[in-house]
Amino acid sequence: MTPEEFKQHGHQLVDWIAEYLETVDTRPVGPTVAPGDVRRALPEHPPLDPEPWSDVVADLDRVIVPGLTHWQHPSFFGYFPCNSSYPSILAELLTAGLGVNGMSWVTSPACTELEILMLDWMRELLALPDRFASTSPTGGGVIQGTASEATLVAILSARWRATGGAVNTDGDTTRLVAYLTSQAHSSVEKGLRIAGIGTDRIRIVDHDESFAMRPDALAAAVADDRAAGLVPFFVCATHGTTSTMAFDPTPEIAAIAHDTRMWLHVDAAMSGIAALAPEHRWVNDGLELADSYCTNPHKWMGVNFDCDLYWTADRAALLGALSILPAYLRSAAAEQGAVVDHRDWQIPLGRRFRSLKLWFTIRLDGLGVFQEQVRRHVGLTQELAGWVRADDRFEIVAPHPLNLLCVRLRAGDAATDALIEAANGSGTALFTRTELDGRSALRISVGGRTTERRHVAAAWDLLRRLSPSG
Amino acid sequence: MTPEEFKQHGHQLVDWIAEYLETVDTRPVGPTVAPGDVRRALPEHPPLDPEPWSDVVADLDRVIVPGLTHWQHPSFFGYFPCNSSYPSILAELLTAGLGVNGMSWVTSPACTELEILMLDWMRELLALPDRFASTSPTGGGVIQGTASEATLVAILSARWRATGGAVNTDGDTTRLVAYLTSQAHSSVEKGLRIAGIGTDRIRIVDHDESFAMRPDALAAAVADDRAAGLVPFFVCATHGTTSTMAFDPTPEIAAIAHDTRMWLHVDAAMSGIAALAPEHRWVNDGLELADSYCTNPHKWMGVNFDCDLYWTADRAALLGALSILPAYLRSAAAEQGAVVDHRDWQIPLGRRFRSLKLWFTIRLDGLGVFQEQVRRHVGLTQELAGWVRADDRFEIVAPHPLNLLCVRLRAGDAATDALIEAANGSGTALFTRTELDGRSALRISVGGRTTERRHVAAAWDLLRRLSPSG
Repeated sequence: MTPEEFKQHGHQLVDWIAEYLETVDTRPVGPTVAPGDVRRALPEHPPLDPEPWSDVVADLDRVIVPGLTHWQHPSFFGYFPCNSSYPSILAELLTAGLGVNGMSWVTSPACTELEILMLDWMRELLALPDRFASTSPTGGGVIQGTASEATLVAILSARWRATGGAVNTDGDTTRLVAYLTSQAHSSVEKGLRIAGIGTDRIRIVDHDESFAMRPDALAAAVADDRAAGLVPFFVCATHGTTSTMAFDPTPEIAAIAHDTRMWLHVDAAMSGIAALAPEHRWVNDGLELADSYCTNPHKWMGVNFDCDLYWTADRAALLGALSILPAYLRSAAAEQGAVVDHRDWQIPLGRRFRSLKLWFTIRLDGLGVFQEQVRRHVGLTQELAGWVRADDRFEIVAPHPLNLLCVRLRAGDAATDALIEAANGSGTALFTRTELDGRSALRISVGGRTTERRHVAAAWDLLRRLSPSG
Repeated sequence: MTPEEFKQHGHQLVDWIAEYLETVDTRPVGPTVAPGDVRRALPEHPPLDPEPWSDVVADLDRVIVPGLTHWQHPSFFGYFPCNSSYPSILAELLTAGLGVNGMSWVTSPACTELEILMLDWMRELLALPDRFASTSPTGGGVIQGTASEATLVAILSARWRATGGAVNTDGDTTRLVAYLTSQAHSSVEKGLRIAGIGTDRIRIVDHDESFAMRPDALAAAVADDRAAGLVPFFVCATHGTTSTMAFDPTPEIAAIAHDTRMWLHVDAAMSGIAALAPEHRWVNDGLELADSYCTNPHKWMGVNFDCDLYWTADRAALLGALSILPAYLRSAAAEQGAVVDHRDWQIPLGRRFRSLKLWFTIRLDGLGVFQEQVRRHVGLTQELAGWVRADDRFEIVAPHPLNLLCVRLRAGDAATDALIEAANGSGTALFTRTELDGRSALRISVGGRTTERRHVAAAWDLLRRLSPSG
């Protein structure tokens, strides 16, 4: 492709994307394909000669778009928001166009330095503790791809600290114990498994009726394990669980963690961004006591996936766990201690220039847009909760302080499951099913960039119409 | 940002990128900034109000670009190629514009199905064994972010298989032993460390004078460990090491691995793409005996980072190691076994729609462009080797079958180090230093999309001019 063709096709694709995003509300939210349909619509073998741009665009419209679940649809209430924004899309284009690798400072200083600055900007916008600032004596932040990776990095830091670094030599994890509730994200158990902490040494701590961790149950479990000669090393507190957006009581958990020198990681992947609005800064409660923290602008701030922000108050543990320095990655700047090499802050070696999308989004859309978005989603969720409470067929099954509402039909699990299936089958809205203490629930996650009152009202109308009369 | 502004700014940014890439050869290859310069040139605190697009573009030119190491510069001979292409940049724009998450089939079927098809296309284009095809009884492929992640996934699969799955429960890794040479990529040791295999149980197997693993040394180490009651579980063979592009003898290694039921992972991150050209398919020697394999289109095929292709012949071990299924991720299609959920094939949960960049690149540039690129780079490297051989001051320190040449000055390590520093300081070319058995070497990695004979000739001229007369 020549530069002239790139410009021509690029302009066309930019326009195609605007058209897609501005008309996505006219499409069914979920895909309209059966397993195998997409593959069968495409050639089984690769072309050996180049094809025209127009053919690729035609296949995009014919095959790819009908095969999508439209996460940017205003009636997408599934999973969690993974919203994007026009400035962020442009930044991703720029990231690709520059094509640099930010594994070390010296491999592109601007990539490293802009990222550190963006983490400091975000710390300030979210009103996070000073201990996470890059200028603090022991802390700092970095972009991870996902909260899964942030959690794994936290676990590895904890493992290193609890063993005094010995794990790097002996690999012995057999006395380490971790604590979480059944409501913690699946990536916590997955991360522990990867790090050599099997289910035998993962304690599922009881939760209360709000689905938050019970500190007394944590304290008891920790005491039992210590009495048995085991080493409590890691506890995950979630600020906004995936199933119901429950908030674990971090200050109380921190007190227990502190007594036992356990690592306290706070996972606020979904809800931490609420702190952009000062009235929601309660979501930060207890962070001044956490060893590490993460939240995802790629969920609720219009920054394209992947962009998880990870802060630690103990970067020595992080570097102890993850640093490896072969000769071909050495640099004078790093050896003089003048710079940070982000490869030592993450699982992979290579890394994209991801901070550009934070920079573009913050500068071009601005704080007011994010605050309005958070307030709109929270307000719509609370209004929806009022409508649900007025319908006797439904019950709200968990606290809903922010932008997620979980409901079920009083008629029982089969009725709730049937409702979810019928609603998703309609194509006019999309929801996710979860289970809470063994019972079905329908999650309504309100987080789309273009989700307005009318979309929420239509979704509620759909759910009412599809529910058996009382 | 409104859709109209997005279109206007997007067109401008597309043109900016074409201009950047077409004129990058007029810039110094490396950055011209000192530690802290980039940060100091930007506001310490975030703006609270939106700023105009023109200000952001101005800062891009003023602050970001001078702070880059220009990986797309035709005289970039550092590290490894991380080349890109116009079709791939457009695909990254599209990925951002669609904004879908491909963690499961149901969260965007087209994302999952196009990816599987692209892995099958690439298997065919690279002439890889049938056992890696998605249609094989036990194999399949997936896109990982980096070879580091691919290696970690291989290690976790191996760990699961060697323990019969028990590691997921007891987390006990204390009898497992892994084998690699000092020339294997740093991510292998890092991945082992993450998986709970400390340096006490990592065997650095001797290499021969070509920097390739000695099978007799491997066999002896394995026998010693078995005699000591340990469990050999993982061996990494590298096809194209980072320092010198050495090729470990995979057929011989496979025979040893087979006898002990060790997992054999072949890391061809840098060199596997050479197999696009039939005359270089020797790089695949032994793959029909490997349990897993990876190579990176984001290194040498014009597909933007991140795009590592990972194939396994034992997907049951992969799924055993990495599957976790909370209620909110269940789907009817997956439970019926009709589809693949890629979240179980990787470390993170979320994933971008990365196969679009393979699809665009293969269709729009076409196989001929990649083959020409591989042949050009290999040819230029061999021509360069001829020039080096004719200059008595230099010696070539390792075999150079493809596109990497390692040289040193006969005058000694200090002279070689000084040459590297002076050459990189010139701004007209960029090289990486490595150490081989304790001695310095200068690596010349020839892999840029726009790197031509004149760039290699100029680089050689630079090195000659900066070297002490003989």
